[in-house]
Amino acid sequence: MTNNKLKIGIVGGTGYTGVELLRLLATHPQADVQVISSRSEAGRSVVDVFPSLRGHFDSLSFSEPAVSAYANCDVVFFATPHATAMAMVPELRSQGNCVIDLSADFRLQDADVWAQWYGVEHACPELLKDAVYGLPELNRLLIAEADLIACPGCYPTAITLGFLPLIEAGIIDMSSMIADAKSGVSGAGRKASVAGLLCEAGDSFKAYSSAGHRHLPEIIQTMSSVAGNEVGLTFVPHLVPMSRGIHATLYSTLNEDISDLQALFSQRYNNEPFVDVLPAGSHPETRSVRGANVCRIAVLRPEHGNTLVVLSVIDNLVKGASGQAIQCMNIRFGLDEATALSTIGLAP
Amino acid sequence: MTNNKLKIGIVGGTGYTGVELLRLLATHPQADVQVISSRSEAGRSVVDVFPSLRGHFDSLSFSEPAVSAYANCDVVFFATPHATAMAMVPELRSQGNCVIDLSADFRLQDADVWAQWYGVEHACPELLKDAVYGLPELNRLLIAEADLIACPGCYPTAITLGFLPLIEAGIIDMSSMIADAKSGVSGAGRKASVAGLLCEAGDSFKAYSSAGHRHLPEIIQTMSSVAGNEVGLTFVPHLVPMSRGIHATLYSTLNEDISDLQALFSQRYNNEPFVDVLPAGSHPETRSVRGANVCRIAVLRPEHGNTLVVLSVIDNLVKGASGQAIQCMNIRFGLDEATALSTIGLAP
Amino acid sequence: MTNNKLKIGIVGGTGYTGVELLRLLATHPQADVQVISSRSEAGRSVVDVFPSLRGHFDSLSFSEPAVSAYANCDVVFFATPHATAMAMVPELRSQGNCVIDLSADFRLQDADVWAQWYGVEHACPELLKDAVYGLPELNRLLIAEADLIACPGCYPTAITLGFLPLIEAGIIDMSSMIADAKSGVSGAGRKASVAGLLCEAGDSFKAYSSAGHRHLPEIIQTMSSVAGNEVGLTFVPHLVPMSRGIHATLYSTLNEDISDLQALFSQRYNNEPFVDVLPAGSHPETRSVRGANVCRIAVLRPEHGNTLVVLSVIDNLVKGASGQAIQCMNIRFGLDEATALSTIGLAP
Amino acid sequence: MTNNKLKIGIVGGTGYTGVELLRLLATHPQADVQVISSRSEAGRSVVDVFPSLRGHFDSLSFSEPAVSAYANCDVVFFATPHATAMAMVPELRSQGNCVIDLSADFRLQDADVWAQWYGVEHACPELLKDAVYGLPELNRLLIAEADLIACPGCYPTAITLGFLPLIEAGIIDMSSMIADAKSGVSGAGRKASVAGLLCEAGDSFKAYSSAGHRHLPEIIQTMSSVAGNEVGLTFVPHLVPMSRGIHATLYSTLNEDISDLQALFSQRYNNEPFVDVLPAGSHPETRSVRGANVCRIAVLRPEHGNTLVVLSVIDNLVKGASGQAIQCMNIRFGLDEATALSTIGLAP
Repeated sequence: MTNNKLKIGIVGGTGYTGVELLRLLATHPQADVQVISSRSEAGRSVVDVFPSLRGHFDSLSFSEPAVSAYANCDVVFFATPHATAMAMVPELRSQGNCVIDLSADFRLQDADVWAQWYGVEHACPELLKDAVYGLPELNRLLIAEADLIACPGCYPTAITLGFLPLIEAGIIDMSSMIADAKSGVSGAGRKASVAGLLCEAGDSFKAYSSAGHRHLPEIIQTMSSVAGNEVGLTFVPHLVPMSRGIHATLYSTLNEDISDLQALFSQRYNNEPFVDVLPAGSHPETRSVRGANVCRIAVLRPEHGNTLVVLSVIDNLVKGASGQAIQCMNIRFGLDEATALSTIGLAP
Repeated sequence: MTNNKLKIGIVGGTGYTGVELLRLLATHPQADVQVISSRSEAGRSVVDVFPSLRGHFDSLSFSEPAVSAYANCDVVFFATPHATAMAMVPELRSQGNCVIDLSADFRLQDADVWAQWYGVEHACPELLKDAVYGLPELNRLLIAEADLIACPGCYPTAITLGFLPLIEAGIIDMSSMIADAKSGVSGAGRKASVAGLLCEAGDSFKAYSSAGHRHLPEIIQTMSSVAGNEVGLTFVPHLVPMSRGIHATLYSTLNEDISDLQALFSQRYNNEPFVDVLPAGSHPETRSVRGANVCRIAVLRPEHGNTLVVLSVIDNLVKGASGQAIQCMNIRFGLDEATALSTIGLAP
Repeated sequence: MTNNKLKIGIVGGTGYTGVELLRLLATHPQADVQVISSRSEAGRSVVDVFPSLRGHFDSLSFSEPAVSAYANCDVVFFATPHATAMAMVPELRSQGNCVIDLSADFRLQDADVWAQWYGVEHACPELLKDAVYGLPELNRLLIAEADLIACPGCYPTAITLGFLPLIEAGIIDMSSMIADAKSGVSGAGRKASVAGLLCEAGDSFKAYSSAGHRHLPEIIQTMSSVAGNEVGLTFVPHLVPMSRGIHATLYSTLNEDISDLQALFSQRYNNEPFVDVLPAGSHPETRSVRGANVCRIAVLRPEHGNTLVVLSVIDNLVKGASGQAIQCMNIRFGLDEATALSTIGLAP
Repeated sequence: MTNNKLKIGIVGGTGYTGVELLRLLATHPQADVQVISSRSEAGRSVVDVFPSLRGHFDSLSFSEPAVSAYANCDVVFFATPHATAMAMVPELRSQGNCVIDLSADFRLQDADVWAQWYGVEHACPELLKDAVYGLPELNRLLIAEADLIACPGCYPTAITLGFLPLIEAGIIDMSSMIADAKSGVSGAGRKASVAGLLCEAGDSFKAYSSAGHRHLPEIIQTMSSVAGNEVGLTFVPHLVPMSRGIHATLYSTLNEDISDLQALFSQRYNNEPFVDVLPAGSHPETRSVRGANVCRIAVLRPEHGNTLVVLSVIDNLVKGASGQAIQCMNIRFGLDEATALSTIGLAP
C-alpha cells in the first residue's frame, strides 16, 4: 500500500549523504521518496547522476528546492551544507513537516556558539530549543516525539559513543580527554575542490583543523551534558586516504580503579541494535562497517596503567549520517528501528 | 519456518567468495547456512574471522571439510581454489547433494583441455557432461534442472555478456576479437602472497598472464558454442589497484553494417534482471556495481568506423562469483531469481 | 658559477607538471629557476604551496605571468592548460626566449584541426610551422636547433613509442590499430573538480572520452608522418585509481611474418637512454617508472598468432611531461641529455 | 676511482629496506655495492626482482648470505628481519667489518628486555654495549666512531624526534605521554601474508598491537635516557591504507608555561639537515616526505591549554630506515652527511 508509506522529501540530494539516503531508503518497505531537490542538478534524472541507483528511483528527478514542493511530505531530510536548512526549516515546520537535518544547523543549542563556529548568524535561533539531538543511544525517547531532529556529525557520533560509558560511570578525568580521530575523504563532501582530489588526498596522511574543528563544540556540548560539567577535550582530526570510515582513538585517565572495563561497555550497549562492543583485545577496522549502520567499539587498558584507550569505528556516511538519520526516522514514526539498516559491511 | 528453508553447505568459507556468499545469504529469507568448512580455520567462529558479519551467523563455526557433514544439505557451494571440488563432488552427488561450484573444476567440457590449463588430471571427467555452465543469461532453462552447476569465472562473465549480442547477431569478425580486461586484486583470492600486497599491487598498474590466462579456454568454449564455430580471441588481463571490480574493454570488427547497435544490446538484455545496458555514450564505472549483482554494459562505435567497442563492468565477487552462484541457486530451486540479490552498488 | 647556468622561467607553476619541473630542476646543476608565475598564487612562496620542495627554492615566489618578467630567461617552460601558451609565445619569441611548451598549443601542425579539437581558434597559426614536436626518440636533431618545442602529450608519448618500431618496419596493418590506454588521475591536472575527487576516482575504474580524446589527432599526426600514410587508430582512454602512471596496451595485426620481434624493438631503442625494452615475457608495471623519465616496453605475440600486443608504461608527469621537457632542454642547449633525469622509480 | 669508494655489502636485499638502500646508493658517488645476499633469491639478477632499478646495478646478483663474502666490505648493512643480524655480526666484526643494522637486533641495551619482546634469547649480548643507536640528531659524535650501529625503528624515529625538544627542555609531564602513530603498510615488510594484502589493508583503517608493540621499549629506552628518568608512554600504532609514510601525533601535558614553543623546536633542529620544523599552524603530510630523508615536524597548543600536540612525519623506508642508515654511514666515514640523501619528496 503506497498509502501507508511515509512520504519522504530530501533537500540537497547530490551530495554523499543524499545519495546514501537513497541507497538505504531503496530497501525501506515503508518509505516512498517523493521529492528530492538539487539546485545544481534540477531537472536531471537521479539515476543519470548516480548510475549505481539504476533500477531504483528510475522515475525520480531532481527538482528546485522549494518549500511548497514538500507540502505533502511526512518527513523532510536535509542533506545539505550548513546554513541551508535553517533558511527553510521555519516554513517547513509551519506547513507541518517533520524535519530530520543531517547538517549542523540545529546541533548546537546556543546560537552564539553556533555563529562563532560557523561564521554566520543563526537564521532561526528560536527553533534551537525544539531540536532534539538525534543520537538514539542517548535520546531515543525524545527522538520518538520530536518534529525537528538534528543528526549528530560523523566525528561526534564515533567519539561520543566511545566516551559515553566512561563519562556516565564517572571514572575518568573529564578535564583532559583526547580524541585522535581519522576520517575518510567523503567527510569533506562531494564538491569540487583541490584538497579532495585523489592526487592530493590519496596515498598520504595528515592532520587538519587542529586549531579547532567545527565538531568540537558539538562533542563538548553532548559530553558536558552527560557529565553534568563542562568537559575538556583535545580533538585532532586526520585525513585517511580512503573514501569512507571514521576511526576514533580515544584517550582518558582513570581516576578510580575499575575491575571490569569490558563489562562496563557491554552492559551499556547491550540493548543497542547498532553499537557492537567487540571482545577484549580486538581492533575494529573501518571496513567492517563499510556501508553498515554500526558503531564497533573496543576498549583497552595498556599495561594495566591509568591511561584508557577506546577504539571506535563507524561509516561516516551511514551511522555517522544517513543511516543514523533513517534510524531516527524509524524511531520517530514507530517503525522497527532497524528497518532498511541491516546492510552488512562490505569487506573487502 | 526453518523447515521450508534451503539447507545450505559451503566448502571453503574463508576466501573472498566464501565470505561474499555469507554476506548475500544473510539477507536471503529462504536460505539457512548450516555447514561451512575451512581446513585452515576449522573450529573458529565465522564472525571471529570476518567481523563484518557480526550480528549474523554468530553461532556458525568453520568445520573440517567432510563429505558426510553435508549429507542433509539441499545445496553445496564450493568456494575453493581449483582441484578441490572435483575431489569431493562425486561423493556429494552420490549422497544426493545439488552442487554449485564457483571454482573452475567443471567449467570446461573437455577434460584434456582442463588438464592442459590447470596442470593436473581431472578427477572425475565423467561428470563434466552433467555440468551446466551457470550463466543465466545463456543457460537459464538448463540451470533450472541441473544438479551440478559450474559458475563462470569473473573475466568470462564480463567478457561473454559483452560480446554475446554481437556474436548471436553474427555481425562481427569472430576470428580476431580482443578483450582488454582489468580486474581488482580480490580476483587473486585471499591467500598469503607477495604479489597481492598493498605495497606491490597498490598505486600501480600492469598486465599479467598475457601468455595465456586460465579463463581464456572457458571464454572461447562459450563463445564458440554460441557462434557455432571456433572463435579467435586475444585476451590480456590487467591488475587494477582496487579491491573489487572488473572492467572489460572489448574490441571487434564489424563485418556488416548495422543501423542500431544500441537497440541490439537493449533488446537482447531487455528481460534480464541483472544486465543493464546503459544509454548511448555512457562509460560504466566499476564502483556502480560494487557489491551488486549487476553487469552494466555500454556499446559504441568510435567515429562510425568498423571497430566496435563494448564496455562491460561487474563486481568480480558478486556477478562474477557469489552473486551469480546464488542467482543460479534461486533459478534451480524455483525461487524468485532476484532474492537476496538486490543490493545496490556502494558508491562512493 | 651561476653565470654559466641556464636561466629558467616557468609559466603556470602550480599544476602537477609545474611542481614536477621544479622537483627535477632542483637537481639540475646547470639550471637556475629565476621566474615562476601563477595567476592564482601570485605572491605566495613556492614552498608554502608545495611543502615537499622545502629546502629547495626557499626564496622563490610565484609572480604574475607577465611576458617582460621572462626577458632574461634562456628558456621558458609552459606548464599551463591549453590556450595559454599561444597567447604569450609570439611576444616571448620576439624578445628572444626559447620556449618549451608542455601544453597542447603547438602540437598539431594544422590550425584547423587544432581549433576543431580544442574549441577555439589558434592565436598564432603562423608559428605552428616553427614548432618541433619534442619526442627525442623521433626528432632529436630537430629539437637541438628548435626555439619552439611542443612537448608531446602523455598518452601520445606512451603510445607512439610503443607503435614506432612496428610502423617504421612496416609490418603491421596501419589502418586498424588499437590503443587501450590507462592513466592515473594526475593526468587531469591539479584543479578543483568533482570527477577527480578521491571519492569519485578512487577504488573504481572506467573508460572515458571514448567518443574522441584530444590526444587522438596528435597521435595520428605523428604516426601518419612516420608511416607516410594516414593511419587508423581506435583510442580508448581509461582512468586508474592511482596518481601517476600510464599503461598503454597496444594491439595491431601483423601483415607479414617476422622472426624476431624482440630484436626489432631492442635494436630500435638500443641507443635511447630513456626507452627500456624489457626481456621477452615481461609485464612492465607503472610503479617501475614512478618519478622516473623512462618508458618501459614489452612486446609479445600471443599464441604466435597475427595479433601483436605491445605494453608501454611511463610516468605521465615525467617522461609524459616534465621529464621529457627537460630532456628536450638538455638536447637544445647541448647538455648531457640525462642531466637531472636519472631519478630511479619509487617502488613501493 | 673505484678504489676510493666504500665497498658496500648488504645482507637481505629483497625486502623493502633492501631495495630502498639500493635506490639511494645508486646515486651515491662514493659507494660501490659489491655484495648483496638473499636466501630466497640467490642467483637471480637484482634488476630482475626489482625492475625499477634497471639501468643501475645491472650486473649485480643476489648471493647466498655467507660471512666470508663480505670480507672485503668496508661496511655491511643488515636489511633483514630481527634475529638474523645477531647471528652473523660477531663474525663480521671479527673480520673487521663495520656493521650498520637496520633491524632490531642491537637497538635495546638490555638483553633480557630484548628477549622478552622478541621471544628468543639474544645471540651476542656482549656486543650490545658496543652498539650505538643510530639517531644522528642525538648521537652524531658516537656514530662517527662506531663500528656497530643500530638504526632506530621507523616509529621510534618519528616519535623520538617529535618529543625530543620537549623532553630536553623538561617542560612536560614525562609519566603519561601519548603517541598515536599511523604507518603505511610497507612497515610490515615484503613477505607473503594475508594481513598485508591490498584487499585486507586497503581502503580501511585500524589500530593494531595496542597491547604492546615491539617499538615501545626502544622508544622508552631512548626517551628515558634523555630524560634521566624512566618515562611513561602509551603507544598505539595504526595501519594506513598507503605504502609509505609514518605520521605520529604526540600528546603531552605541559608542566610549566612556555612562551615560545615554536622557537624551542626551531632552535633544537636549526642545524639538523634532515629535520624540518614547519611554520606554526602547519600540518605536515606524509607525501611531503615520500622518498625523502626528512622528518617534518609541527607543534601546536590547542586553545592555549595544557595539552601539547606534536605532528611528526617521515617516510618509514627512508628517514625511518634506509636513508637514516646511509646518513649514519656518511657520518661514520667522514663523508658529507647529505650525500645521496637529497631526493625530494614525490608529490603527488
